[in-house]
Formats: sequence, structure tokens, C-alpha cells
Amino acid sequence: MAQYKVAVYIYPGGDLLDFTGPVEVYSASLPSAPSSFEITSFAHYDSVKSPTNALTYTPNASFKVVEATIAEYDILVIPGAHDNIIKPLIASTQGKELLSLIRKFATLPPREKSGKRFLQSVCTGAVILGAAGILANRTVTTHHLAHDLLKEYTDQAAGGDSKINILNKRCVDAGLTDQGVRIVNAAGVSSGIDTSLWIYEQFMGKEKANFVAEMVEFERRVEGWSSA
Amino acid sequence: MAQYKVAVYIYPGGDLLDFTGPVEVYSASLPSAPSSFEITSFAHYDSVKSPTNALTYTPNASFKVVEATIAEYDILVIPGAHDNIIKPLIASTQGKELLSLIRKFATLPPREKSGKRFLQSVCTGAVILGAAGILANRTVTTHHLAHDLLKEYTDQAAGGDSKINILNKRCVDAGLTDQGVRIVNAAGVSSGIDTSLWIYEQFMGKEKANFVAEMVEFERRVEGWSSA
Repeated sequence: MAQYKVAVYIYPGGDLLDFTGPVEVYSASLPSAPSSFEITSFAHYDSVKSPTNALTYTPNASFKVVEATIAEYDILVIPGAHDNIIKPLIASTQGKELLSLIRKFATLPPREKSGKRFLQSVCTGAVILGAAGILANRTVTTHHLAHDLLKEYTDQAAGGDSKINILNKRCVDAGLTDQGVRIVNAAGVSSGIDTSLWIYEQFMGKEKANFVAEMVEFERRVEGWSSA
Repeated sequence: MAQYKVAVYIYPGGDLLDFTGPVEVYSASLPSAPSSFEITSFAHYDSVKSPTNALTYTPNASFKVVEATIAEYDILVIPGAHDNIIKPLIASTQGKELLSLIRKFATLPPREKSGKRFLQSVCTGAVILGAAGILANRTVTTHHLAHDLLKEYTDQAAGGDSKINILNKRCVDAGLTDQGVRIVNAAGVSSGIDTSLWIYEQFMGKEKANFVAEMVEFERRVEGWSSA
């Protein structure tokens, strides 16, 4: 049985690589061993279409099921999407439930089994974290074209200047919550692979993370990192 | 309506990034314009699970439908998978139908509308092309751990030494078929993004391809290329 549990939220029009990058990394097999991560994709819908309807997914679990068992997860992945998808999502009933789930996850203690817990945003997934009110006073990143959008939603959640500091980096370790959940942001799309390899390393060690990077022939870009 | 048509074959256990990388690139929107590519995922099954069952897809079309209309496609994408998925796939009835479809596509003339046609393999998808008997005497690439496997299947299809030349490059332009279909191979997983950006450029020009690369924050690795 897999040691660590990853929940990946998916939604209509959500960017494809934003969540398949992390899923690829966490589901990678090691030599003569299956992955140590069990991945649960979850959604508010029974089926979810990617942009241009090229792919339709059936999530593993409903939002309600993951919401009820969220304390069992080591990693929660929030992928991004275009503005015209993100804004109505945040404003919707489903969006409000998602923001509430993110706040709940951010205030959990580290998981007893692993001693860790990570909240991972990819691309404009950071805007959803900002709207959930957990990015004030943090140094973060998001897609390079979404800096203003992220500031807007984080300020709105703070009811004034959130003092968010947005860097133009591929990956940012935005630090721990008071309860000990580490928030990690990827910038655009493909940088979700970088952050996933870094989080993978925190659980499995550098050697295994480098092995996975080699398997997916992805050149890790450490120079793009900013750590809290 | 989209100008160009892309068919992406998906199958149980097929690598996730191998096909979501190309789908991400071809479905990317340009400023104030939808994508010029229409993507059709197709499969032998009504639903397809990714490795570790993290994601379940519902393809847009059945194998039979795409087989009957294959002449309408500008690009055919064949993703890879682990050995233990690729070998039984090639040996199966579905695999034989796929090899036959690949041979049919490789002997079509360029599409009248675009003047081009591309057969694109990602990762061990090249082994499937090799088994279809269209890689003899070509310079190609595949996942760096699958060179022997590719040679074995290509030689078998040739009934002897296929004189295949396998490079350790991220991307290889394996040249045109007699009828004018260009064969392009990506090495492992993430290099499918590089080959897709290159093929995208052949249809849309360098400026738009660079724009898409910037949108997905992917650093194009031209130094990994080998052109026929």
C-alpha cells in the first residue's frame, strides 16, 4: 500500500499540464518498486473536460468524499486555468467550498505518519489559495501573466493590503502555516513538474527524486527556486 | 473552426505526460484567438486509466471512427508507456490494428489543406512505430532506457537488420516517408513538449510557437534536436 496520499483537485477548463505534471511525478515507479504515492483526483462533477474538450476525465472521488477525509492526505494539489475559468470558479458555490477546503487543509497539523503536509499550487492555482486568505504576508509565485490577479484576490481576502510578495520565479517555497503545512507555488504550467520533484524529494530523498526526473527526462531547474 | 486536426491515441497504462504534453501545446490559445488545432483523443476502449489509476479518460472518438477518417488528420500522436504495457499492447489485436493504422497514415500524401502531415511518437511510442515497420534505415530517438527495445522491434519488423540508427537526443526529425509524411520522435516523456512545439512551429510559425512556449513556461531545448 502506498505510504503517502496526494489529492488533486480537477475542474472543467483546468489546465492539463498543471495537474498531469504533478500526477506524472507522484505516480512514477522506482526500480522494482511501485510508487509510494497514492493519487486521488477529485472534483465537483462526475466528469471534467480539459480546455478545447480534448480530454474528458472521470475523477477517482467526489469533492464530498475528499472533503470528509482531507486529514488523511499528505499533499493537496490545486492546479490553475485561464482567467476566464478561474474567476467564475472562485465566485461559484463550488469555488467557495474549495476555498473552505483549502483553509481547512492549511490549518491541519502535519500528518502523523509522514510528519509533513504540503499545499501545492500550480500556475494560477495560487490565485485560488490567495482567495482562500492564506497567502497574506507571504512570498509566493504564480504564472508570470497573473501577478496582478493574484494580488487582487489576496488583498480582497485580507480586506486591504495583504502584503503579499510575488516573485517572478519558477518555484517558491511560501513557508509553513502556523500549524505546520508547507505552501509551495509553481509558476506556469510546466514548472509544476519542478515543484512536484522538490516535494517528492522531501518525502523520498534526493536520489529517488533525481531518478524520477531522469525517467521523465526533465531537467530540474534549481536556479528558479526561492525558499522561505 | 480549427484549421488543423490532431489525433492522439490513448491506451490503458499509457504514460500521462507523453500525451498531455502534446495536447497542452496543440490546444494552447493565442492572444484573442482560440487554438488552430482540433484535438481528437481516440482509443480502443470507452474509458482509459493512466498508470496507478490516478486518472480515467473518456476518449473523444473510437478507434474505428478515427481509422475510417484518418486521411483528415494533419498530426497523429503515438505516446509511450513502460515495457510491461508496450509489449502486450503490440502483441494484442488492438495493437495490430494500431500498427496497421500507423502504416496507413505513413503512406498518405500530405494533407491538401496544410500541405503537411506529421507522425509524432513520444517516448516508447517509437517502439510502436518500429513494430509497424516504418523506421528501418532511419535515424530516430526514444526513451534513453528503451534503445534496445526499439532496435529489437524494428529489426523484427524488417526480418533482419533494420539499419535503424538510434540517437540519444531529446528530439529527432526522422525524415519524410516516400509519400511525404514527416516522422518526428521525442525521447522521454517531457521531451514530447519540445517536439510538439517544433511541429506547432511548422504550422504556425516561430513567433506563435515561442508564445505558446512562454505561456506554458517551457524552456525550448533546441540543442537536443537532430534533424534529418
